[in-house]
Amino acid sequence: MDSNKRVYLFQEGTKEMRDLLGGKGANLAEMTQLGLPVPPGFTVTTEACNEYVKLGKFGDGLEEEYLQALAEMEKSIGRRLGDSKNPLLVSVRSGAKFSMPGMMDTVLNLGLNAETLAGLITQTKNERLGYDAFRRFLMMFSDIVLCSVAQRPDGKPLNLERKQFEGLLDEMKEKRGVKQDTELTADDLKELCDQYQALIRTEWGRDFPADPKEQLAMSVEAVFRSWNNKRATDYRNFHHIPHDLGTAVNVQAMVFGNTGEDSGTGVAFTRDVATGEKVIYGEFLINAQGEDVVAGVRTPMKIKQLAEWNAAIDKEFADICEKLEQHYREVMDIEFTIEKGRLFILQCRVGKRTAAAAVKIAVDMVKENLISKEEAVSRIEPVQINQLLLPRFDPDKKAEAIKEDGLLAKGLNASPGAASGLAIFDADKAEELGSKGERVVLVRTETSPDDVHGMLAARGILTARGGATSHAAVVARGLGLPCVAGCEAIRVDEEKRLFKVDGKVIKEMEEISIDGTTGEVFSGSISAIEPDFQKETDLIALLGWADEIRRLGVWANADYPRDAKKAREFGAEGIGLCRTEHMFMEQERLPVVQKMILSSTPEERKKHLDKLLPFQQADFAGIFQAMTGLPVVVRLIDPPLHEFLPGHEELLSRVVELQTELKTKENARLREELEEKQELLKAVESMREANPMLGLRGCRLSILMPEIVEMQTRAILGAAIQVKKEGFDPHVKIMIPLIGHVNELKTVRDKLEAVAKDMLAENGAQIDYKFGTMIEIPRAALTADEVATVAEFFSFGTNDLTQTTFGFSRDDAEGKFLLKYVEDGILSDNPFQTLDATGVGRLMQMAVEAGRKANPSLELGICGEHGGDPRSIQFCNELGLDYVSCSPFRVPIARLAAAQASLKISGPADK
Amino acid sequence: MDSNKRVYLFQEGTKEMRDLLGGKGANLAEMTQLGLPVPPGFTVTTEACNEYVKLGKFGDGLEEEYLQALAEMEKSIGRRLGDSKNPLLVSVRSGAKFSMPGMMDTVLNLGLNAETLAGLITQTKNERLGYDAFRRFLMMFSDIVLCSVAQRPDGKPLNLERKQFEGLLDEMKEKRGVKQDTELTADDLKELCDQYQALIRTEWGRDFPADPKEQLAMSVEAVFRSWNNKRATDYRNFHHIPHDLGTAVNVQAMVFGNTGEDSGTGVAFTRDVATGEKVIYGEFLINAQGEDVVAGVRTPMKIKQLAEWNAAIDKEFADICEKLEQHYREVMDIEFTIEKGRLFILQCRVGKRTAAAAVKIAVDMVKENLISKEEAVSRIEPVQINQLLLPRFDPDKKAEAIKEDGLLAKGLNASPGAASGLAIFDADKAEELGSKGERVVLVRTETSPDDVHGMLAARGILTARGGATSHAAVVARGLGLPCVAGCEAIRVDEEKRLFKVDGKVIKEMEEISIDGTTGEVFSGSISAIEPDFQKETDLIALLGWADEIRRLGVWANADYPRDAKKAREFGAEGIGLCRTEHMFMEQERLPVVQKMILSSTPEERKKHLDKLLPFQQADFAGIFQAMTGLPVVVRLIDPPLHEFLPGHEELLSRVVELQTELKTKENARLREELEEKQELLKAVESMREANPMLGLRGCRLSILMPEIVEMQTRAILGAAIQVKKEGFDPHVKIMIPLIGHVNELKTVRDKLEAVAKDMLAENGAQIDYKFGTMIEIPRAALTADEVATVAEFFSFGTNDLTQTTFGFSRDDAEGKFLLKYVEDGILSDNPFQTLDATGVGRLMQMAVEAGRKANPSLELGICGEHGGDPRSIQFCNELGLDYVSCSPFRVPIARLAAAQASLKISGPADK
Repeated sequence: MDSNKRVYLFQEGTKEMRDLLGGKGANLAEMTQLGLPVPPGFTVTTEACNEYVKLGKFGDGLEEEYLQALAEMEKSIGRRLGDSKNPLLVSVRSGAKFSMPGMMDTVLNLGLNAETLAGLITQTKNERLGYDAFRRFLMMFSDIVLCSVAQRPDGKPLNLERKQFEGLLDEMKEKRGVKQDTELTADDLKELCDQYQALIRTEWGRDFPADPKEQLAMSVEAVFRSWNNKRATDYRNFHHIPHDLGTAVNVQAMVFGNTGEDSGTGVAFTRDVATGEKVIYGEFLINAQGEDVVAGVRTPMKIKQLAEWNAAIDKEFADICEKLEQHYREVMDIEFTIEKGRLFILQCRVGKRTAAAAVKIAVDMVKENLISKEEAVSRIEPVQINQLLLPRFDPDKKAEAIKEDGLLAKGLNASPGAASGLAIFDADKAEELGSKGERVVLVRTETSPDDVHGMLAARGILTARGGATSHAAVVARGLGLPCVAGCEAIRVDEEKRLFKVDGKVIKEMEEISIDGTTGEVFSGSISAIEPDFQKETDLIALLGWADEIRRLGVWANADYPRDAKKAREFGAEGIGLCRTEHMFMEQERLPVVQKMILSSTPEERKKHLDKLLPFQQADFAGIFQAMTGLPVVVRLIDPPLHEFLPGHEELLSRVVELQTELKTKENARLREELEEKQELLKAVESMREANPMLGLRGCRLSILMPEIVEMQTRAILGAAIQVKKEGFDPHVKIMIPLIGHVNELKTVRDKLEAVAKDMLAENGAQIDYKFGTMIEIPRAALTADEVATVAEFFSFGTNDLTQTTFGFSRDDAEGKFLLKYVEDGILSDNPFQTLDATGVGRLMQMAVEAGRKANPSLELGICGEHGGDPRSIQFCNELGLDYVSCSPFRVPIARLAAAQASLKISGPADK
Repeated sequence: MDSNKRVYLFQEGTKEMRDLLGGKGANLAEMTQLGLPVPPGFTVTTEACNEYVKLGKFGDGLEEEYLQALAEMEKSIGRRLGDSKNPLLVSVRSGAKFSMPGMMDTVLNLGLNAETLAGLITQTKNERLGYDAFRRFLMMFSDIVLCSVAQRPDGKPLNLERKQFEGLLDEMKEKRGVKQDTELTADDLKELCDQYQALIRTEWGRDFPADPKEQLAMSVEAVFRSWNNKRATDYRNFHHIPHDLGTAVNVQAMVFGNTGEDSGTGVAFTRDVATGEKVIYGEFLINAQGEDVVAGVRTPMKIKQLAEWNAAIDKEFADICEKLEQHYREVMDIEFTIEKGRLFILQCRVGKRTAAAAVKIAVDMVKENLISKEEAVSRIEPVQINQLLLPRFDPDKKAEAIKEDGLLAKGLNASPGAASGLAIFDADKAEELGSKGERVVLVRTETSPDDVHGMLAARGILTARGGATSHAAVVARGLGLPCVAGCEAIRVDEEKRLFKVDGKVIKEMEEISIDGTTGEVFSGSISAIEPDFQKETDLIALLGWADEIRRLGVWANADYPRDAKKAREFGAEGIGLCRTEHMFMEQERLPVVQKMILSSTPEERKKHLDKLLPFQQADFAGIFQAMTGLPVVVRLIDPPLHEFLPGHEELLSRVVELQTELKTKENARLREELEEKQELLKAVESMREANPMLGLRGCRLSILMPEIVEMQTRAILGAAIQVKKEGFDPHVKIMIPLIGHVNELKTVRDKLEAVAKDMLAENGAQIDYKFGTMIEIPRAALTADEVATVAEFFSFGTNDLTQTTFGFSRDDAEGKFLLKYVEDGILSDNPFQTLDATGVGRLMQMAVEAGRKANPSLELGICGEHGGDPRSIQFCNELGLDYVSCSPFRVPIARLAAAQASLKISGPADK
């Protein structure tokens, strides 16, 4: 390759030259090389653009170089730019390596002026076509090129946008009393061309440049300039695309689909990009230009009607589609034009598709031996497959609902999926109806742990307050329940059992629908398409290949047997986090838990714990049964105990209210309530904390009140012994949370090891069990060499680790400033969604290295929400973790992302 | 040195052999080598002890080896152990490298039995002395040796403690109708010796071992065993002393100070250890044994009376003192005995002394050319000098107060110093009286930022709740005010303006006294000794030498001009932390601050900020004047804004109260109040945070509401410009707090740089100013390479960095679990007092290395409370920080600690 070469004829390039020719140029070159009927042309390289950016003008000799290419092109097509007899018209288009909004649009029909217009009319024998082409060219050139490169004598910005020209067009239509552009005659259009030229002269102070070479030079310069316009720069900043790539310029001979009934234009995909079916899919218009397809004035024909219109073209086009698919080994998106019965391919690129189509196409192509399993796995955006696993509203029914004004509001799309059901405003009633088989949507201002039993019984959750990591959102994602959170437009009145929105009132027991994927809230019921993972055979095949490729294990976070079953169905290879405190929240247990907490002696506490033990044991037994043969990590109690007690505010209000009432009139019943509430308030106050997130919780609690975790250990091992007798194969990992110092872990582990040994000895049982810890406090990561000597496994609790490493409280940060941080680009991502590799990741890396060095058999995983985020999974793979653990519904995503992570490491670098 | 040698005669050792001979043995050997009159003896080494611990019995040949030494000793003294004519008696004492409570006590008079007793009586011609010595020996040997090494035939523990024997002694005294031991006759004591032996026989089932060699062997074994008794083991654990050092055993010939009026015994220091004056200081008793001095039965004589009693002995003793001081180059603590006019030195060690004496002695010794300045600086425990800088109660007056039952309670010694004054229960009244010159002690259940104006006016603070890092404690330490916090015994009733304690009631305007150094609270006033730094000439000299030695700069944390002046007087070389928010709390400003916070538009906010600007500018001007020529680091606003608003709880209670009252009866005035309070409550609620420590504060606030820090920057630079015109020399460092990501710093700095440039341009002024940040969030430390590119200085905010690295909220942790952690040895220190070098220190080290690498001119300091803690200062010196900053009253401590840190690094390793 000539390193100084700045202009390539299409026949000189290949699809591998995207860096130099841009995506569009490379594909045009490739198709030319393949012998497809591509109108001839050339590409000015990205390097020429970079040179322009650097110099502020064309590099020396660039113009000569592209005029030389133009001459070659003229020779091959037998027409010349500016030739009044047989004029060549060209399109000029930008084309960077990555498609990028904000870059310069297409200029069509470049080369037209009074003389060449006459030639075009003679050639096409179509005067109207000629003036219409000229009119459009004048408008596009002014709007796109002149506004970019030309200057008014007074230095003010040129006022030559599209809307100026369309104003004149509208005036003309009004004057002629017509509605459609197509109703204007050739004379009308000719008059319009004169008006357009006059406008340019007035505004610019110069005549429209009649010289086609000047037109070309200005257009190339406009493309170059558009590389650094604000929209393109912002886009690159946002997407982390380097600013030094530059854009190429494609100059291609015009062909005309609007020269008669034997002409036409269309767009097609080589397969159905909605379903993935292997049929050519697209539409075309007879006697039309590309713009007309977009404008939607005439209804286009389906591509399968092509055969009826012209069997030969149809055959030729089908062959080209086949050839391109075989060559690119991809579904291609093709623009084509038929000029007087002759087919031209104007452009091709990889076709965008739905999630379902993407999976089917990838799997089919493997079956067709077109691509490898690795390629199939690489081609699917992991989060896309979520769409296949969650209930979604029937699109037609949803559109109907919107038409009928059923859309009430939009909130945060906090947990994907769709649900319809009766609006219910408290957890107890939701549980009651849910247990009777009613479909229920729980509506709350915000949820708290007290609401969990109602959430478990609901089909979906709607809250008026709270962000993507509010209690409602986190629990819903964990349960795979659709959730719209922080829907600020609705006002929930829990006492009156209704919500108001925009003047409407929705009362309890009225039906509503929520779309957790989009955040929409509807009145009434919308029928949904329920997914069935077992029927997603293509997806199952694809994930099977992903499993062959990936190194990382994929486990799930599940607190209940039903979640564990779901996770296993989705391919989880273990439970990476089973939170035991959710079990404490269930309605029949909470009163016992509260008594346990308020106990004044360890003996009293033990008495209440003994009552909880059978419940916990039954919970664990269910999970061990569901996960037989696979590991289950059970995290011991973590939250501060005051979370299990009534709210301080509520109690305080009631106490003050009672005090005030009793001041005016004594009342024995109220006096008794006051005394009881005051005592409870005192207890709650003694447990209040300034920063509960950094307070008495996790292992700190276990050191102060070992009775609770001793009971939990007995329940866990009791369950394991029980299910083993039933023929199951439990693998128990007990996780001690919130460790900051090795001595904390040692203190708790020593105590629990003793309990475990006693249990097993008493029962004469042998159980595979291990003790480990969560790494969620910076100090634990910093001193991992010490901690690893006492732990058999580490699980990175990246939710809390992100909180402490950034000093962000999620509850406070996301609502109050994190959004602004991401908007302003202070942070590129919300670190609670995508792992902060630079900061939090650095700590993880230190912990992995020091931990493995101190204890080579240490098992390493992650159980924060990042475990289900593809970019974070990639990072975990690079760190060398053994597994990621995520919510059950993200297990398929994680399997795929883990495979892609493996491919990126083992395959060649691919940018 | 023979590596197998396990027994050393005193003449064979030196003071350098502490590892092998223990402290006591090494000093006895040294004195013997110096030719002092030390009764002969030998030392069994620590290695012999370790061998015993390993084997569970004496190592082979050990007994032969010490008997050999005994034989040498017998030869030199001309008496023999067990000789009935001329018996040698010995003392047996433990002596480890470090003095250690719990180790075996002394056994005196070993070697006595019926025969040798007869010999002793013949020799001393004193029957009573003989039986008294035997009685004491029987008791000590049983209590100390038999209880350790002997066994009852039935395996139960031996019941032969001291109290058993003293019981018999008491019976005898009762029988004889006497009160003092000395009133018993020789016959009485003889009878008692028989009773003692009978007791031993009954309890042990064996006769008391008459064989002096058996007595010796059992005693040596008892010393060895005492090395691993519980008290000694716990002590070593607590003080991080290795368990494998072992203890030595010293066997020394007995001399008798109770053989007549020409005998005596005493203890003396080579200088006055209370004042430091260069005079021998101590006391002695004629015709007495060591025990008698301790028992306090007879009033001893002062050492200066020695000359009157025996001028030759006095001269000899004074010469020995001089010799020992010159030799050890230290004040020595000497035990001596005079037997029949002959002086013996029984033991010597370095003398303990008061802080004042320590300073004077060190400075004097430099002047006497006895020690170098470096040694003088090394010898003072830095925290000790605090005693010289704070008011303290006159010890006599305090003792009087205790005698008169004035001690009310004891709380936490939260901030040292002593204060008396009127008990005042609210901040406003404290301020009012304080401004009139009244001495006031502010008494509160706990304090909040609302109380600061009252604290500023008080002489001391007393709170019923809160730990060593509660608001009251932290502010008081910052202000150098005495504070007793968390005094749980008192019940403060702020409404009734009184507190109750133990049945007593202290009302407002009654006088109380608090001792913040001890935590004591007294009724009434106690006169105090007020320190005057300028008069502490010895201390000033010592600190001057420290300044020559230290590498670390010592700056101070000061928020007010008067603190800055104090700090400078104490030698601070800059202000490392000036917190600007305290200024917002002052009474006349707070209403404006609240209006500013509750503003609904930036314009409204700016209006209120404009009113605050002159106040802030005046504050800064005062500090810049006080610190002219030295750097001042001003931290921009840090706490969450809700800290400036009324408390949520208080507001909520009032709202509920009003609502309840208005339910029964309408009242226009109350209705109006309700509406106003409800609106305020709403605002407060919207600002509430789940974890304010991790919420909207620091730079996050500055990003969301830049107006506040823009005002502060104008006030800071305005003040600098103003004082420069007045002839001062301000050096301004603006510190942006709570940075986690470099982009946060960049965003805020860019904004403020613009403000600063404008200010300077408008005023045509040139000011030396820099921008930097606090490193207090783990992520900032982890990404210090990035942060350092935008910062001109780092100041480690180790209070918050410790909170986030451990995931500890100080407010919650210290009261709830940190104390237990330290007690249980989970943490060796409270990490808020002494820097956690392993975890937090690791982050600091990373930040220092990466920061300096990215920005070689980066200035590094620490402004957390650790900046005043000597061990933390040592660590900061090792890290290579440029300075430490601490509260003004700790500046002298820090100067000394910094010098010691330098000496430890540059000097030879000294364990």
